[in-house]
Amino acid sequence: MELIKGGVCAAKGFKASGVHCGIRKNRTKKDLALILSEAPASAASVYTTNLVKGAPLLVTKNHLKNGTARAIICNSGNANTCNANGIDIAEQTCELLGDALKIDSDDVVVASTGVIGQPLDIAPIQNGIPALIEALSEDGSDAAAEGIMTTDTVKKEIAVSFEVGGKLCKIGGIAKGSGMIHPNMATMLVFITTDCAISPEMLQKALSSDIKDTFNMVSVDGDTSTNDMVTVLANGMAGNDMITEEGEDFAIFMKALNTVTVHLCRMIAGDGEGATKLLECTVKNARDIETAKVVAKSVICSSLTKAAMFGADANWGRVLCAIGYSGADVDVTKIAVSFHNGKNYVCVCENGAGIEFSEELAKKILLEKEIEIRIDLNDGDKNATAWGCDLTYDYVKINGDYRT
Amino acid sequence: MELIKGGVCAAKGFKASGVHCGIRKNRTKKDLALILSEAPASAASVYTTNLVKGAPLLVTKNHLKNGTARAIICNSGNANTCNANGIDIAEQTCELLGDALKIDSDDVVVASTGVIGQPLDIAPIQNGIPALIEALSEDGSDAAAEGIMTTDTVKKEIAVSFEVGGKLCKIGGIAKGSGMIHPNMATMLVFITTDCAISPEMLQKALSSDIKDTFNMVSVDGDTSTNDMVTVLANGMAGNDMITEEGEDFAIFMKALNTVTVHLCRMIAGDGEGATKLLECTVKNARDIETAKVVAKSVICSSLTKAAMFGADANWGRVLCAIGYSGADVDVTKIAVSFHNGKNYVCVCENGAGIEFSEELAKKILLEKEIEIRIDLNDGDKNATAWGCDLTYDYVKINGDYRT
Repeated sequence: MELIKGGVCAAKGFKASGVHCGIRKNRTKKDLALILSEAPASAASVYTTNLVKGAPLLVTKNHLKNGTARAIICNSGNANTCNANGIDIAEQTCELLGDALKIDSDDVVVASTGVIGQPLDIAPIQNGIPALIEALSEDGSDAAAEGIMTTDTVKKEIAVSFEVGGKLCKIGGIAKGSGMIHPNMATMLVFITTDCAISPEMLQKALSSDIKDTFNMVSVDGDTSTNDMVTVLANGMAGNDMITEEGEDFAIFMKALNTVTVHLCRMIAGDGEGATKLLECTVKNARDIETAKVVAKSVICSSLTKAAMFGADANWGRVLCAIGYSGADVDVTKIAVSFHNGKNYVCVCENGAGIEFSEELAKKILLEKEIEIRIDLNDGDKNATAWGCDLTYDYVKINGDYRT
Repeated sequence: MELIKGGVCAAKGFKASGVHCGIRKNRTKKDLALILSEAPASAASVYTTNLVKGAPLLVTKNHLKNGTARAIICNSGNANTCNANGIDIAEQTCELLGDALKIDSDDVVVASTGVIGQPLDIAPIQNGIPALIEALSEDGSDAAAEGIMTTDTVKKEIAVSFEVGGKLCKIGGIAKGSGMIHPNMATMLVFITTDCAISPEMLQKALSSDIKDTFNMVSVDGDTSTNDMVTVLANGMAGNDMITEEGEDFAIFMKALNTVTVHLCRMIAGDGEGATKLLECTVKNARDIETAKVVAKSVICSSLTKAAMFGADANWGRVLCAIGYSGADVDVTKIAVSFHNGKNYVCVCENGAGIEFSEELAKKILLEKEIEIRIDLNDGDKNATAWGCDLTYDYVKINGDYRT
């Protein structure tokens, strides 16, 4: 497997674009993005578990009933959620795009992100679609990645190549993250494209399985968005034998997909609203996977732990505390905690109690941009990882006055 | 029922004190508190549900097995939690106090609050006990309230008088709150005293029932402390017939207790770490109590909603979002949301969708120090209230470097 350039346009037959259409007042920020597959593609999607669901999700869910799609259109700046006419607007968006591209509007995936509860006007989208189509390009992944950003500070893109049955396949994705991200509820906006040939059923199976260990293990602020979803399009243009069942080819595809999703998870967590650092919590030697996951997520979600990491303060008691209230059945007296960066680590707690450690070394480690909080439960052999970020002044600033 | 002065010393036969004994370096901050009943008292207590429990809680739980106590000793500045010798230190504290007061060490309730995982030295406590006892006074509630504070910015005290069977009774309490407070797990440090005569069983029943609607409905940051507890001592010196069963007297006692606990809940939430305002979320017309509670707590815990309230931003979509991911089974299309202060209110959402409203009026309301977020589920007749606070720069500042 090899890291390649091109994001959602890395795979054969995909073009993308992003433009400013006027949903946002700031003319320098793109607010409409498009991804188009030359050929009909298998399509799979997962959605937020929030009971309050954005209208675009309901429309997309309906369009993907037959497991195929051609295009993804996504606006930022308005979530089109909790609006009386939301479904109408989302349907109109698909029809306008379908007409312009001469494809069935049922083959359009639609998504929106931004503020909730403010009516979305169809006019800027309608007016923007010609320019959006005009801008479609094999170098358009960057522009599309920009178009879906809200408070993100960096574009989130990745692509890798892999081989299935002697054929070179590619898979790439773009993501939008930042605030309102919480595990096991749903995720954020992620669009993934591949030219690997795989049936809609196996694509959905791969995606649904993968997110349990990836996007569902990311938390920025404990809030689960109403609008988030992950969609994969697979257009089969790599020419491999269609993957229709489990086996070696499916395993290879799963691994490639996972490489893309883990990378995007880390980017999303590290670019959480106001974040100055990526936190990775690895839980080792749990009695079962569920325990490992629950503990990892509890730690990554703890406001007190997140604030301590911002301050590079090795206040490991807060980690123990978060394990204790996680609801997981753990033996506190067996727990060890250590902080790691790429090169160094410091062990701060053994057998559930503090041990002497170098505050200087701990500070050095915690001042890094990527920190691993490693928890050894010494109670089995199952592991899990969760990703999050620190809690900072800027998180409060960004969210204290989001609408203005 | 009448509001009176005196805090935990309002009731007959109670004295209290607070001194600086040296656990904290800052000599102007009291770090040891004592409450003493002249007569043996019925004692009831509830504890954190965190699996990681402070050593003092385990010792107190053991001491209260017989349902009686005489004294409460509490230090701040060190939680005595996740220490190898924690139980020893907590037991020693009780023995030293018992010896000095000539009471059974089993009649001592011990509590600690502060940083986790740093060994607690017995020396400052041992050295401080004589001065602590020397300072005992009927005007000592203030000093005790100061002694248990950590990052609290205001002392939390209240007392009320009430009548049981023609006898004047009094009940009062002190509390310590701020960070690491989350509902339904446990609470914070609260010590309540009353001269009402009530059996240990009925006292425990009253307390266990009351906290479900009071301390378990308070959240500052979603973190559940390892050390928090609520203890009530009832020494019977008011001379009423001992309450030993449900009935009118018990109902009156419950009401008096609830007046004290609701007042302390509001003080604790409003003085959450870094908070600039008290948030009260009232949920009306839910199909059942559990639904009302789950919705109220989800909204009060939402970082995005809390940050919006800090910024006086009427971003009600975040309220809907928090209702949606609460896990409660609600009909989104029936929900109405309004913001209230004492005098004015503004309705921002009806039937699950936004309505036109005056941003100016909303701003005016949200700039107040106490805000009610009112949610009408229009789906039944059950109500619940939860208390919380806004999320501010100062929360991050306080918790980014707590240990130094």
